[in-house]
Amino acid sequence: MGNYAFGVDIGGTTVKIGLFDREGCILDKWEIPTNKENKGVSILPDVAKSILAKMKEKGIEEKDLAGIGVGAPGTVDEKGTLVGGAVNIGWDAFNIPEAVHAYINVPVKASNDANVAAYGEMWQGGGKGYENMVAVTLGTGVGGGIIVNGRLLTGSVGAGGEIGHIHIQDGETEECGCKNKGCLEQYASATGIVRLAKRRLQKDDKASVLRDGTLSAKSVFDGVKAGDEVAIEIAEQFGEYLGKGLALVADVVNPEIFVIGGGVSKAGEILLTFVEPNFQKYVFQMCRNVKFALAKLGNDAGIYGAAGLILR
Amino acid sequence: MGNYAFGVDIGGTTVKIGLFDREGCILDKWEIPTNKENKGVSILPDVAKSILAKMKEKGIEEKDLAGIGVGAPGTVDEKGTLVGGAVNIGWDAFNIPEAVHAYINVPVKASNDANVAAYGEMWQGGGKGYENMVAVTLGTGVGGGIIVNGRLLTGSVGAGGEIGHIHIQDGETEECGCKNKGCLEQYASATGIVRLAKRRLQKDDKASVLRDGTLSAKSVFDGVKAGDEVAIEIAEQFGEYLGKGLALVADVVNPEIFVIGGGVSKAGEILLTFVEPNFQKYVFQMCRNVKFALAKLGNDAGIYGAAGLILR
Repeated sequence: MGNYAFGVDIGGTTVKIGLFDREGCILDKWEIPTNKENKGVSILPDVAKSILAKMKEKGIEEKDLAGIGVGAPGTVDEKGTLVGGAVNIGWDAFNIPEAVHAYINVPVKASNDANVAAYGEMWQGGGKGYENMVAVTLGTGVGGGIIVNGRLLTGSVGAGGEIGHIHIQDGETEECGCKNKGCLEQYASATGIVRLAKRRLQKDDKASVLRDGTLSAKSVFDGVKAGDEVAIEIAEQFGEYLGKGLALVADVVNPEIFVIGGGVSKAGEILLTFVEPNFQKYVFQMCRNVKFALAKLGNDAGIYGAAGLILR
Repeated sequence: MGNYAFGVDIGGTTVKIGLFDREGCILDKWEIPTNKENKGVSILPDVAKSILAKMKEKGIEEKDLAGIGVGAPGTVDEKGTLVGGAVNIGWDAFNIPEAVHAYINVPVKASNDANVAAYGEMWQGGGKGYENMVAVTLGTGVGGGIIVNGRLLTGSVGAGGEIGHIHIQDGETEECGCKNKGCLEQYASATGIVRLAKRRLQKDDKASVLRDGTLSAKSVFDGVKAGDEVAIEIAEQFGEYLGKGLALVADVVNPEIFVIGGGVSKAGEILLTFVEPNFQKYVFQMCRNVKFALAKLGNDAGIYGAAGLILR
């Protein structure tokens, strides 16, 4: 087995690529644009070309490579097949390892990008040292990745850990992007927090720093840090929803740790002070003993996790 | 590896034991009383004695045995340690395989009894042919067992699949046995159904067969089969709660099949007609394609699953 691996994280705008050694240290990282023309037909050839050029630059041969890991923005099954294609980048269904093998003959593993990022956080990030972890990504939406005994729980069609769409609130009148009503994502994502904030601000005329400027998850948590009472109310609502949602997840998979990442998590440790107490209110006592941590790898979680599919 | 295995299911009143061949066919089964005196100190010796006697009777030697699987009524970790003891039978924490080895020197595996029963249903019961399954036991309480890629999801402290205590209803005023309020078990267990029935019957004076005789999950579903409108309303409420709960579970672990067992499931296929449509109302679309089946092994699921820990 070779001493190096590449981790590839295919996004809608750029493809991130990292070169790692056997110990999981990152030796180099760079990005290439995602060419979505012609149903994204040149994306994988571009990635292969870029990897081959890097190998030449570093004097790395195929035999030195343990393999290439790939995170793709769609549902990927255990064999690395992108089951339903990837709408964001125009891809139809195909087997990723087979496609990469047309260019480079080393072991290839592929998985869903959110799951791969979770794997990266377990391997070298906020969940390092834990084998039973749930990664929670609070961005535009709410994503999740579940790791059981050190392995990704992909589920029967690759939809394991889709915790953004667990039903958390009866009686919601607005639709989630998934067409259901009352999904966790409608309250705990960046856009969800803005929704909560708007609803709260409309309720009365109480003074708040949030009434000036643009509402965002960041402005809410900045308000919290400044002691703004309305902002604190909104953060408590957010924490109630997320804490309740994570309690449900803990009752099902009984993890050791939740690792929370994504744009919203940039608020820092203060975020957890709203989530943990609410989690404790709802969780089954046997599943109560869970740590909460922030993600550490940021946008590099995907390339770490992809390389980790090969090296770990 | 030997050609036979014993499956042991330790209950509060009796210990069930089964002898299986390599193909998973049951060759013999019997029960011995659970002696709870002196903190259950003689339970395992009794089991060992009974197994050794059966081996003598059948002419089976230690070398013919692939091993012994044990289901115990408590939280059991990956190494077979009964982490928190088993209050029902007086046991403190100890490692079950090590304890059995004092009497019989063959491979021993142990797991939680509910998980083991789930494993049995996957191996030879209602979930045969599936590797991603959630077993749901509707009895006095609601239990669960989750199988991912053919392996039990035990969780970090053995509490994986404790789906009876997921929070499903805000504003509930009565406490669950676990001290929380609004757990799935409070609505979907045999006792939960009786609770729902009492609440419904108290609401008005509408005629119903349920107003005579003793209320039970059975009487409710018998009422449904007889076309009783009040019974149908109660079953629909039950189905709404269980369907919503199982949708949450499906969003987290994305199984292929739910296998529903326990006393309440004796109502038969009609039970599923109340659960499935409600499940579809709440589940995330990617996780929608799940089968529902009834458990098949009844009280033998535990000995099947225990033997399956060894033979599968």
